Amino acid sequence: MPKEFPLSKVYQLLEPGPVVLLTTAHKDASNVMTMSWHTMLDFEPPLVACVVSEGDMSFSAVRATRQCVIAIPSVELAEKIVKIGNCSGREVDKFETFGLTQLKGKHVAAPLIGECFANLECKVVDTRLVNKYNLFVFQVVAAWRDPKQKDPKTIHHCGYGHFVVDGKKIVLESRMP
Amino acid sequence: MPKEFPLSKVYQLLEPGPVVLLTTAHKDASNVMTMSWHTMLDFEPPLVACVVSEGDMSFSAVRATRQCVIAIPSVELAEKIVKIGNCSGREVDKFETFGLTQLKGKHVAAPLIGECFANLECKVVDTRLVNKYNLFVFQVVAAWRDPKQKDPKTIHHCGYGHFVVDGKKIVLESRMP
Repeated sequence: MPKEFPLSKVYQLLEPGPVVLLTTAHKDASNVMTMSWHTMLDFEPPLVACVVSEGDMSFSAVRATRQCVIAIPSVELAEKIVKIGNCSGREVDKFETFGLTQLKGKHVAAPLIGECFANLECKVVDTRLVNKYNLFVFQVVAAWRDPKQKDPKTIHHCGYGHFVVDGKKIVLESRMP
Repeated sequence: MPKEFPLSKVYQLLEPGPVVLLTTAHKDASNVMTMSWHTMLDFEPPLVACVVSEGDMSFSAVRATRQCVIAIPSVELAEKIVKIGNCSGREVDKFETFGLTQLKGKHVAAPLIGECFANLECKVVDTRLVNKYNLFVFQVVAAWRDPKQKDPKTIHHCGYGHFVVDGKKIVLESRMP
């Protein structure tokens, strides 16, 4: 089971730029999409800006419910991540098709994904750039971390199915949080 | 010398979430900062949203000149990247201190960085989220790629000087650009 994770450290999960999954619950159906266009906006409370394309089923769900979950998968899920991006929730139940476990969150109806090492419950706090850029600003209201996934490697999208996987780690003396 | 790079492929450089450098030219001085909070907003023309903290000298330069260069360094520059983030242009000439080569761009006064494998000349196109989140929307108006750096590995920030370096590459059949 995921354990609650400090909101003050959420930026350390998203700042490196991993491919993530975004889940929604709307009109009695849950859905999940693949997403790479996101950035941190503030540390605490953690604010995240994400592009959810207007054509995606998730767009209308996020706009209507003003909620979502950002789930962070490790490289073991790479094939599923791509397949999730290759199809639409209008045609298939993606959770069933790809065998992903839906867990209940604390503050939002959108499901956490049991197989992801981190899950962030999010609420929309700013929609000023939605019409022009499909850019939503979310506040992370709760974060979860699977303690069994000790050293997850994330993937980063480089276009057309090319990904780079997290490699070695380095530590340098930094004043930056 | 850098070669011009197609604007349609700029997202492939930024989408993976590398730590980047941002340069400015303002009041007869050029400056450079380290930045990890950025996301693509659109493919072509490439639009990028970046957080430039209000306290940073670069913030006033970007706001006044409405221009910058986003330079993408590889892991070989990791120590310099961190040192650039640890000091302010108010105290030191960072280009001189860290031995970085300034090259002239085509459309903006901010310098390209010769040692970086890619450089993106940017103009501010939207400031609606600047007051609240320090978030600028840039349009990339020209992009440059150093052909001598064949397979650069970028770095991704995980907080407090911890970085993960690009590792192995994988390719999966994807319909996503």
